[in-house]
Amino acid sequence: MRSYQEMTKEELLQEKEQLEAEYKKYQLRGLKLDMSRGKPSKEQLDISMGMMDVLNSHVDLTCEDGTDCRNYGVLDGIQEAKVLIGDMIECNPENIIIYGNSSLNIMYDTVARSMTHGVMGSTPWCKLDKVKFLCPVPGYDRHFAITEHFGIEMINVPMLSTGPDMDIVEKLVAEDDAIKGIWCVPKYSNPQGITYSDETVRRFARLKPAAKDFRIYWDNAYGVHHLYDIDQDHLIEILSECKRAGNPDMVYKFCSTSKISFPGSGVAAIAASANNLEDIKKQLKVQTIGYDKVNQLRHVRFFKDIHGMTEHMKKHAEILRPKFEMILNLFDTELAGRGVGDWFKPKGGYFICYETLEGCAKEVVSKAKKAGVVMTPAGAPFPYGKDPKDSVIRIAPSYPSLEDLELAANIFVVCVKLVSIEKLLAE
Amino acid sequence: MRSYQEMTKEELLQEKEQLEAEYKKYQLRGLKLDMSRGKPSKEQLDISMGMMDVLNSHVDLTCEDGTDCRNYGVLDGIQEAKVLIGDMIECNPENIIIYGNSSLNIMYDTVARSMTHGVMGSTPWCKLDKVKFLCPVPGYDRHFAITEHFGIEMINVPMLSTGPDMDIVEKLVAEDDAIKGIWCVPKYSNPQGITYSDETVRRFARLKPAAKDFRIYWDNAYGVHHLYDIDQDHLIEILSECKRAGNPDMVYKFCSTSKISFPGSGVAAIAASANNLEDIKKQLKVQTIGYDKVNQLRHVRFFKDIHGMTEHMKKHAEILRPKFEMILNLFDTELAGRGVGDWFKPKGGYFICYETLEGCAKEVVSKAKKAGVVMTPAGAPFPYGKDPKDSVIRIAPSYPSLEDLELAANIFVVCVKLVSIEKLLAE
Repeated sequence: MRSYQEMTKEELLQEKEQLEAEYKKYQLRGLKLDMSRGKPSKEQLDISMGMMDVLNSHVDLTCEDGTDCRNYGVLDGIQEAKVLIGDMIECNPENIIIYGNSSLNIMYDTVARSMTHGVMGSTPWCKLDKVKFLCPVPGYDRHFAITEHFGIEMINVPMLSTGPDMDIVEKLVAEDDAIKGIWCVPKYSNPQGITYSDETVRRFARLKPAAKDFRIYWDNAYGVHHLYDIDQDHLIEILSECKRAGNPDMVYKFCSTSKISFPGSGVAAIAASANNLEDIKKQLKVQTIGYDKVNQLRHVRFFKDIHGMTEHMKKHAEILRPKFEMILNLFDTELAGRGVGDWFKPKGGYFICYETLEGCAKEVVSKAKKAGVVMTPAGAPFPYGKDPKDSVIRIAPSYPSLEDLELAANIFVVCVKLVSIEKLLAE
Repeated sequence: MRSYQEMTKEELLQEKEQLEAEYKKYQLRGLKLDMSRGKPSKEQLDISMGMMDVLNSHVDLTCEDGTDCRNYGVLDGIQEAKVLIGDMIECNPENIIIYGNSSLNIMYDTVARSMTHGVMGSTPWCKLDKVKFLCPVPGYDRHFAITEHFGIEMINVPMLSTGPDMDIVEKLVAEDDAIKGIWCVPKYSNPQGITYSDETVRRFARLKPAAKDFRIYWDNAYGVHHLYDIDQDHLIEILSECKRAGNPDMVYKFCSTSKISFPGSGVAAIAASANNLEDIKKQLKVQTIGYDKVNQLRHVRFFKDIHGMTEHMKKHAEILRPKFEMILNLFDTELAGRGVGDWFKPKGGYFICYETLEGCAKEVVSKAKKAGVVMTPAGAPFPYGKDPKDSVIRIAPSYPSLEDLELAANIFVVCVKLVSIEKLLAE
């Protein structure tokens, strides 16, 4: 396919005219399509409805150690839930605390606690002049919202195809003791779908941070969210790797079942070293009497074990895979070789990330909106909502039906082409 | 009945001998009884088992406004849950945010947010030299644990039969702008079972605090937890009263269904003015995507409305009432007029509070323990665990069976008498 850069001005104008006609046609249809948020579709939610049946008034709600899940007690989660989550994130049950419904809330609480109480005895961050976090970009907007909320300065670190640029990460954390953390989505990353390479994880585990209270915020949000059964990415388990590297306390690992069972009604967890857990529990026992054990039990009874969860995830994959493949095929056919941008081909997770020519992302999102397609706002995957190159667009294929998604993706393609030509013509 | 104070030394020694023999007999039985925590009994939990049936795979989990409760969305709770909780705590649904499973967690979050972000634009408390809270005593140990955790200085305020001593409260909050809050359990208070009088509530609403960011932490934990259907205490609704008094923003009201449905698996909520809710939501939207809407829906579908909840609470009352009455009758028969202490007769809530002669509480609790009866540690209902008079003992009648409770209460009575006599003999 010839790239737009190889075309003459006349050819570009002709192409533009055609695209504008196509765009107009879409506009006239008054569509309302949404590719903005990583929400499972109704079809995906339906596959978890059995979860509503495993507990009923004829079922004993006692867990294996005899605890009545209906009453107060058990601060850090029932044992069988720890085992299930442990298998899910490849950690020992004893390194896990099961929380409520939201891993984001755990991350928030973790930063909030560090602000008021420090980390394992360090000075509370609110007493320091400056606290900084490294933010691999593009990344997850809600991570950046937490650090922004606490007035923590965010420093962009570029994402490579192997994960964050570790040369930069190593240098910065070694130099600056104001850097207290780094936000990571290490597997099927949000938004690019990148899985950190073995080397990247090993270099993470071997970091030599100037700040003793530096922690890696390892948000393993998509750990079991594969699109394929065999062709899966593999991520090295970070807690074990940190332990081997002599940095056992350097990482917090977060996860939830939000995109496994029901978003907002699942269970979330943190995994960390014994020292970190002890530090966390000092706060936790003041914060709450305990989380919802009945819901923990419901999850265990529904999935039974990690094999049950794996089989369940295949059902999600069957629904998601055609959506991802449709978009990636369309991009291959329509955009590859055009010189109008790049993208990764994720093997899991919830997003496809399209990188436009510099300075085009906002305009593409705006044009798509005017044709009835809502996208995540350009800039959202960056701290303070500022994409320095204005080129990253996050595409969330999960929520719309395949039919709607195909329409939306085609409109997106037209918008990308149009805005790219406009840019090239203006140069 | 003759009081011990009226007895001769010889009579006391004779009484002591009898009591010691009785105590020994109990000791030999190797009992294990627990009156320490305000946990519902198994029998009480059983009455909520229908909650496990209202949602199943054949039921639509969509709420009235069309929201699919199984997916992300709705930060502050589904409307029908706000209506139910609003009816429960006599507030407008629009003044309510539904949280997760724990009102304690909401209170913790409220203090934590004030520490890092202040209250409606005030200086974050962590930037102040000194922050103080008023603590009506005896009170709830977990309240005091929160303020202690954040290094907030706690000032005891005596509880009267009408609620906190308002002369002291009014004076202190008017004088000292470091006083930022007061912990209240205004109805069937923990541990005394006192309901604040109309005058007390009106004086609360009319406080003139020196600190603009002073808030009343109104933990309405036992709002619908009556022991009787007609003979109920009535508490004036504080939000409306504050509004009438021109102090609409001065109060946070907390509640949960923990002792209505399942402890730890219920729903919790805050009620406050529009200004306060706006302030809270600035944080909330960063902290989480939303709480467990499926569980909110489960509660609404189970209780249906406030009448359903009222009928449900009657079932709890039927189980709790004989326990409270047995203890209060025993105290009337065995302890009234003996000059060995005082107690209130609560019409609801979860506790009976026994006030021993000065300096006897620890010894009574210790003696009970040696006879196999676990009580809440003496001192627990006070900041820093320090009861200045060493006289308050919290009794939690809910968890044991009536049979076990009767045994435990009889042992407690023997311990109170013995320790009181020992004190009188030593004088």
